Amino acid sequence: MAKKSARSPSVRDAFRVVPGTFDVTALDPAATPVGPRSKSAAARDAVEVGARLDRLQEALYAEGAGGGRRSVLLVLQGVDTSGKGGTIRHVAGPLNPQGLHVASFKKPTRAELRHDFLWRVRRRLPEPGRIGVFDRSHYEDVLVARVDRLVPAAEWRRRYRLINEFEAELAESGVTVVKCFLHISPERQRQRLVARLENPAKRWKYDPADLAARAKFSQYSAAYQDALVKCSTQAAPWFAIPADRKWYRNWAVANVLLETLQELAPRYPEPSYDPLVELARLQEADPLH
Amino acid sequence: MAKKSARSPSVRDAFRVVPGTFDVTALDPAATPVGPRSKSAAARDAVEVGARLDRLQEALYAEGAGGGRRSVLLVLQGVDTSGKGGTIRHVAGPLNPQGLHVASFKKPTRAELRHDFLWRVRRRLPEPGRIGVFDRSHYEDVLVARVDRLVPAAEWRRRYRLINEFEAELAESGVTVVKCFLHISPERQRQRLVARLENPAKRWKYDPADLAARAKFSQYSAAYQDALVKCSTQAAPWFAIPADRKWYRNWAVANVLLETLQELAPRYPEPSYDPLVELARLQEADPLH
Repeated sequence: MAKKSARSPSVRDAFRVVPGTFDVTALDPAATPVGPRSKSAAARDAVEVGARLDRLQEALYAEGAGGGRRSVLLVLQGVDTSGKGGTIRHVAGPLNPQGLHVASFKKPTRAELRHDFLWRVRRRLPEPGRIGVFDRSHYEDVLVARVDRLVPAAEWRRRYRLINEFEAELAESGVTVVKCFLHISPERQRQRLVARLENPAKRWKYDPADLAARAKFSQYSAAYQDALVKCSTQAAPWFAIPADRKWYRNWAVANVLLETLQELAPRYPEPSYDPLVELARLQEADPLH
Repeated sequence: MAKKSARSPSVRDAFRVVPGTFDVTALDPAATPVGPRSKSAAARDAVEVGARLDRLQEALYAEGAGGGRRSVLLVLQGVDTSGKGGTIRHVAGPLNPQGLHVASFKKPTRAELRHDFLWRVRRRLPEPGRIGVFDRSHYEDVLVARVDRLVPAAEWRRRYRLINEFEAELAESGVTVVKCFLHISPERQRQRLVARLENPAKRWKYDPADLAARAKFSQYSAAYQDALVKCSTQAAPWFAIPADRKWYRNWAVANVLLETLQELAPRYPEPSYDPLVELARLQEADPLH
């Protein structure tokens, strides 16, 4: 491990949110601190990264089929147009859909509101051997819930601790949680909202309420600052991803996920049978042969 | 529609199970009744078919986001090594993972057995706007349950009707059900089982119980014959796919799905707002601009 770090600096270290020093307002959404410096270099990398993710995913899936309990959960958060959907498409696209589960969390339904805020999230955790992706998550309950005062301050204030306890429990049970905050500038958000409105095939993605949320950009920044700093733990770190450039955002999230899977090092299970005995059964004692 | 059928014969018609004439024992697992005659021709087709599926899936997803209730459920059945996993990888691979949900049904758990046989299936139906894929399904309850006598004969016999009622109810509620039976020969199954045993990275896919099931090939054929004939309905037809050749199987299932989506003709929702008003708000009245 030490040897490897010496060779190539960790992508995760470049983006990890370190409580005490992290300041969301000082983060450049167009930065490219590590990795490729151009779209074409990123595209060349993407093929190799996709192939590696695919191999590691298959091993994780096999491990799960063999009784292993481990899984990975990638949580994506960010304001409207920050690129959560595009990231899923590009990062999860090369993966085998059978070993993948994407869950989107919208405004809670009435049924969901009758339970505690983690209830709907617990129901959609990845099964053993799978990679789960959350498009928004339980963090909405300390973001929109706080900014729009959907619950009393005392309520959202205690949620940071509940989230940390929940995520520690996940880690304990074999779920590796990786959280990426997609950070874009207000100007880039404006451009993307305009693009959605100008393209008839994209208008369904726009909601007039997006503008109301946009007017609260600074309140959201404050809410993200607290969520990221209070909940970037050893068990479940936050990564702040510069997301003004789509190609860089995709590269960064894919590599954060890749490093996570490499560290997990999933293993094909040892067969519980003797392959030679089974081959003999198939080749010599097979009634259909 | 009539014009189009005159131009190109329907892929679905070539594979549809027609009760009264269908005979699973007369089906050639290596047949290529329509479509490409070679792997390379199929590969050329696959790019175009994948792109079309992707566009239709996005429209279906948008329709769902706009309040539409429709979804598609692709059910895959077939004996061990018939290629359910490979089909998912190839057919669902080009789709956007966000609009896709794959559910695998294994031996029922004790919790699942405490409910009626459709309970676990109902819980994993695709949400509106999504494409769901079932890797095995409620049909196991008239296949392995029958062959291995897991329930009394009177019990599995009544399930065909219950399944038809369930699937009619799904159609009624907006779920278009497409069921594909992947048909392979005993010899091809033997080859694939041997290949799994010979490759250490594939041994996890093999279970000695696969050989016990294989010894009951003819009982499974009889069970498939009944399931396909009794449950190929207008609302939820069965398609019997020759699956000895992987490239042909992938081509056939992709095109059955494509025709289904083309017939559905999902539509982008009309915006509930005035795009020009919103553009003006963003360009002139935006506090962050």
